[in-house]
Amino acid sequence: MFRWIEGTTPAQVQFVTDSLNTLPSIIHEISRYQHGPDAGINQGNFDYVVVADFASVENYLSYRDHPVHKQLIADVLAPLIASRSAVQYLLD
Amino acid sequence: MFRWIEGTTPAQVQFVTDSLNTLPSIIHEISRYQHGPDAGINQGNFDYVVVADFASVENYLSYRDHPVHKQLIADVLAPLIASRSAVQYLLD
Repeated sequence: MFRWIEGTTPAQVQFVTDSLNTLPSIIHEISRYQHGPDAGINQGNFDYVVVADFASVENYLSYRDHPVHKQLIADVLAPLIASRSAVQYLLD
Repeated sequence: MFRWIEGTTPAQVQFVTDSLNTLPSIIHEISRYQHGPDAGINQGNFDYVVVADFASVENYLSYRDHPVHKQLIADVLAPLIASRSAVQYLLD
């Protein structure tokens, strides 16, 4: 989950969405990739979430360390992120 | 996502897991309910995550406001939570 910096525009958020949408066709270790802006139902939420499923920890690490993913983080996400919270957890 | 307060024990976290596992059979508006402790792969993560899918915003609100859910939050989660981050987002 991310909180965007003050002044982040809808067009910038759409660019985040579009950029993330390119990843599953490039990084085949991703099993399921869902993300989007907060729906505005509750107060105090973060602004955007990425939920990614992987068949194994190794597949997750391939994604985490993939150069295209790292480039996207550096170029698209990092400039907009005010704060981030993350968990990796094991699915049943 | 939650960060637990200092001194939270594995037994308390297991009780969180067991308690959350009771909800889908009680709150039928939950379509998919996955949760668990951080896997310890990366530094700086939160400690626990709950990912819940719903067929509609109305179903989410039924869950959010369900008395059994609210009781679980008050009795089991709230005493352990140091910080929380949340997003609701629309699935494709």
